[in-house]
Amino acid sequence: MSILFRQLTICGVGLIGGSLALTARKHRLVERVVGLGRTQANLDVAIARGLIDFATRDAAEAAQGADLVMLATPLMTFPATLAAMVPYLPPDAVVTDVGSVKNWVVCRLEPLLKSSMSFVGVHPVAGKETTGAAAADEGLFVNRRVIITPSALSNPEALEKIEKLWRATGAQIERMPPAVHDAILARASHLPQIVSSALACALADEMVEERWAAAFGAGGLRDTTRIAASSSEMWRDICVTNKEALTSTLRLFRHWFDRFEDAVVAGDEPALDHLFTRGRRMRQRID
Amino acid sequence: MSILFRQLTICGVGLIGGSLALTARKHRLVERVVGLGRTQANLDVAIARGLIDFATRDAAEAAQGADLVMLATPLMTFPATLAAMVPYLPPDAVVTDVGSVKNWVVCRLEPLLKSSMSFVGVHPVAGKETTGAAAADEGLFVNRRVIITPSALSNPEALEKIEKLWRATGAQIERMPPAVHDAILARASHLPQIVSSALACALADEMVEERWAAAFGAGGLRDTTRIAASSSEMWRDICVTNKEALTSTLRLFRHWFDRFEDAVVAGDEPALDHLFTRGRRMRQRID
Repeated sequence: MSILFRQLTICGVGLIGGSLALTARKHRLVERVVGLGRTQANLDVAIARGLIDFATRDAAEAAQGADLVMLATPLMTFPATLAAMVPYLPPDAVVTDVGSVKNWVVCRLEPLLKSSMSFVGVHPVAGKETTGAAAADEGLFVNRRVIITPSALSNPEALEKIEKLWRATGAQIERMPPAVHDAILARASHLPQIVSSALACALADEMVEERWAAAFGAGGLRDTTRIAASSSEMWRDICVTNKEALTSTLRLFRHWFDRFEDAVVAGDEPALDHLFTRGRRMRQRID
Repeated sequence: MSILFRQLTICGVGLIGGSLALTARKHRLVERVVGLGRTQANLDVAIARGLIDFATRDAAEAAQGADLVMLATPLMTFPATLAAMVPYLPPDAVVTDVGSVKNWVVCRLEPLLKSSMSFVGVHPVAGKETTGAAAADEGLFVNRRVIITPSALSNPEALEKIEKLWRATGAQIERMPPAVHDAILARASHLPQIVSSALACALADEMVEERWAAAFGAGGLRDTTRIAASSSEMWRDICVTNKEALTSTLRLFRHWFDRFEDAVVAGDEPALDHLFTRGRRMRQRID
């Protein structure tokens, strides 16, 4: 494949940004990768692991020469970071992101760009509970979904180049409108996170006769709470920026939790049978 | 180790009963293992895999000569199964079980026994979402908790022999009263199951623009719903028999889910930070 961009500047060289950098460099899809970060320690790891050519904590310096800017920090930091970079970006710069919410990002970022610039929103659905440059992994996106959400400032050429970049990771690429993305991910990703975190919160201090109840959990408790270990900051931002879709999805969960609770309180065996069977069939369908 | 029992009759040669049979036979802790089952197909697998010496679907036949009876079917079938066996059991028979709820079991089973018989309740905390004799695995209990819940009819000699039997599996043995067990497991096991199943139920039919939302879930959705694939019958019985402890535990979860929902609806960033951080710390403590 030929070079797609001269300089990729990644804002936030963590799990997602760092993993994409590994692919971009391996396939020589970009000539140079610059990392913009908050902490020197993580940037040092990114340099040492060969994720980036140059590290800086200064947005203006990171912007210079970047014909591709990738925002890969917690969502709500995107507008301030981009606003600080825009005056120093080349006029034809393409801006992209890897945020888990898309409508909010499009609405907040596109007004910040100059008319000659492009924006292409991307969500690689490939999170892990590990973070930072140390967690970057070239195989992270293989066979994962990468959702591209074209919007007003996504010019066709920029869209095609961004798709080529992500296709090189081995991911399955899919396009959909930002609002459709947000409704789907509220269900498939944001709801499970809140349920898992609420379960972990509920059990955090639960003692029975001086024993910590959670210590008696087996694989079931470990699996259902695994993602509760994820970054608080990232999930706070997702909740704030996808509030509408998430609110109706929380109501949906509550409806089914209520049905379980009613059936338990009533000792209603047929209802319990029906509910557990519905859940089992759904789970089998995922596999 | 020397022989503990002449004949172990296992009622329900599935994951738990079958796995224990493998250990008992390997270490020659019992002379003979009889399997009582509902379906011939599963009993055939149990014979073919060498879990049992003899298979029957008749409770009276299974009872004859059994100085140890292990109930390992769904919980609510225990009383009827045991009642059918008692008239044919040796007078000094020890009855044990592997149910996930203990107070209900003790209260329902002890009145069925003759005064010369013993009862020792056991809960090996080692479930999987797989079932049947085909899933039996000798290593299933290694380093897992096995909780013994002594009660009125647990005579000291029977208690000691049952502990020896389970110790041979490589499990960590722990004693506690039945009601304490039930309060702990309602939190560490039964609540996560209902939360996981309710999540799976909520997403079972969720379509967005003709796309099944759950298909877009990554590892997070798969992990949080993994145990939703478990046996409906087993979980229905656990819910019915541990109703009191479970009811207050469901209220506890609801309290924390409500706090998440309130924070999402209010867009309350500090509250979301606090909640996700509390969940993350709890999860890290489990590992």
